[in-house]
Amino acid sequence: MLVDGVAYRTIWPAEDGRAVRIIDQRQLPHEFVVEDLATLEAAAVAIRDMWVRGAPLIGATAAYGMALAMRADPSDAGLAAAAGRLRATRPTAVNLVWALDAMRAALAPLRPERRAEAAWSRAAAIADEDVAINRAIGAAGLPLIEAIAARKGGAPVNILTHCNAGWLATVDWGTATAPIYLAADAGLPVHVWVDETRPRNQGAALTAWELGRHGVPHTLIVDNAGGHLMQHGRVDMVIVGTDRTTARGDVANKIGTYLKALAAADNAVPFYVALPSPTIDWRVGDGIAGIEIEERDPAEVTDAHGRGADGRAATVRICPDATPASNPAFDVTPARLVTGLVTERGVCAASAEGLASLFPERLRA
Amino acid sequence: MLVDGVAYRTIWPAEDGRAVRIIDQRQLPHEFVVEDLATLEAAAVAIRDMWVRGAPLIGATAAYGMALAMRADPSDAGLAAAAGRLRATRPTAVNLVWALDAMRAALAPLRPERRAEAAWSRAAAIADEDVAINRAIGAAGLPLIEAIAARKGGAPVNILTHCNAGWLATVDWGTATAPIYLAADAGLPVHVWVDETRPRNQGAALTAWELGRHGVPHTLIVDNAGGHLMQHGRVDMVIVGTDRTTARGDVANKIGTYLKALAAADNAVPFYVALPSPTIDWRVGDGIAGIEIEERDPAEVTDAHGRGADGRAATVRICPDATPASNPAFDVTPARLVTGLVTERGVCAASAEGLASLFPERLRA
Repeated sequence: MLVDGVAYRTIWPAEDGRAVRIIDQRQLPHEFVVEDLATLEAAAVAIRDMWVRGAPLIGATAAYGMALAMRADPSDAGLAAAAGRLRATRPTAVNLVWALDAMRAALAPLRPERRAEAAWSRAAAIADEDVAINRAIGAAGLPLIEAIAARKGGAPVNILTHCNAGWLATVDWGTATAPIYLAADAGLPVHVWVDETRPRNQGAALTAWELGRHGVPHTLIVDNAGGHLMQHGRVDMVIVGTDRTTARGDVANKIGTYLKALAAADNAVPFYVALPSPTIDWRVGDGIAGIEIEERDPAEVTDAHGRGADGRAATVRICPDATPASNPAFDVTPARLVTGLVTERGVCAASAEGLASLFPERLRA
Repeated sequence: MLVDGVAYRTIWPAEDGRAVRIIDQRQLPHEFVVEDLATLEAAAVAIRDMWVRGAPLIGATAAYGMALAMRADPSDAGLAAAAGRLRATRPTAVNLVWALDAMRAALAPLRPERRAEAAWSRAAAIADEDVAINRAIGAAGLPLIEAIAARKGGAPVNILTHCNAGWLATVDWGTATAPIYLAADAGLPVHVWVDETRPRNQGAALTAWELGRHGVPHTLIVDNAGGHLMQHGRVDMVIVGTDRTTARGDVANKIGTYLKALAAADNAVPFYVALPSPTIDWRVGDGIAGIEIEERDPAEVTDAHGRGADGRAATVRICPDATPASNPAFDVTPARLVTGLVTERGVCAASAEGLASLFPERLRA
């Protein structure tokens, strides 16, 4: 998407082909810094230390990391070592494992001297595939916004989102944001309510930044405010991303998503979830019983990060030093609260039947 | 309540009777600082600059401010000037106006030379009345906790609260916290989930502090987490305070309360609201249509306050500098989501009939 008028992806090859470039997302929203990754080790550090984040972007970075490794050592041992090094960076990232497996499957059958070039092509294809999927999610979701816009006769369509399911989490477009960017680019009047998304504030730091840079009107709110806005008719639809969707349409997403879904249902506001189909976990039905929720560092709750008065990154403690804290990272929104799932194949009901209508091949599996 | 074993109120006369003492709540939770207020002006500044906050405590501080003023100038002009000075400190505080009116009504009929002593007594009575009301709210709410404790057979009763309706907002006991302190003092096993309560973090800064100092087990969570905890059976009841309750039982309270009420209803968790009856607004029925919600400074949303790494108070910006923000301070929880209202006269249904059962004199009004 655009950053002050210039089109970017979150990862792209340098002009001379000797490195891959990324945005150092640790510096956002206060600094926009582009870094070159020229070695396997640089790619591993960028993933491990969260210069890049978001499942699709981690996968694409790992793929390019494999390609960089093949230039230095394309042997079978080099291939195995590179995959091992990258896999260790974020052990629970499903897309990371998927991308590494895809790269090994493509490269292992080849003679070592052919691997470097093939790896670079395959990594580029993985990135392009992510862009295409997200673009398709956007195309599927756009009519939902168009329908509300038609009803409102020129008044802005107010869309609430939670966390960052934006282009920064993917290679381009984002998931929840893809329909929004398409609508904005088409000239529809959209306005986004951005939940700050404590404890890590991805909404405030990332979603507000990317919407602002692309030129989409938006307003930052605390996570507590969405219900009030819905009560007063100030939200026309909610759209969020998801880390994992179950076979019956339950949705695991950033902590707090469930509360917004409840408020949407209570106020007859449509609540959509945007997802690439690889994040559907066909083995799990009941998301509340079947999805284990990661408990993260309590310091994320007791502290807040940002930029201090001196312009430098700073952390403040918001509670007494001895206060115990709990930090569940995700919650599960039951399918009954989800108006529709927006996938690269179209929109469906959040149910086993809905998903089967879009992914009939899964019924045969 | 206790601060590390020593009993405190939030306002009390100095031993020599020459001043009134308060806790400088701006310094919490990082420093516990007691200040003497010896003049009208000191009391006015303490209210205006939020050394004291919470409607009942503001009222008591204003009453003592009048008493301090009467020592310097007990004339009719002095009485009017003092009330005017104090009223200007927080123009929208209902309890402030109420306390000033009560003081003027008590003092105006007296000869000036009798006013100083009478004012001091009346201020002390206003403080004592608040303590008695909150203690009675606690006594009314205690059986709710006892019943859950009996059912759980020794396991902790997990109580979620939002914002600070604690003793720091009153003269002692608090409203939502009064049943909790009584339960803890009676040896019942209680554990409190403390919502941090963005944007001002009164939960993290004040509720966590006061529960910790009194010795009540508690855990700080982000505002996003409560629904997830309820889904997994980890919340036995919710109890919150309120700024204003309507005649049919709708409840205006800190932004985000409505979201927790929705989650409680969705998970069959009882949701109680503790209130002193003077905060009932008998003129308003529909709280969503009838209560105007204050929009506060957007900087509260774009920034977070706490203690920096150097131990000093610090503020960090959590979003891009240009990000617009909206900051509604309260939301309205409809009566249908409220299990019961806990008042100084007992517990009643959140309905016109429920309130009439406890306050029959209002039916005749």
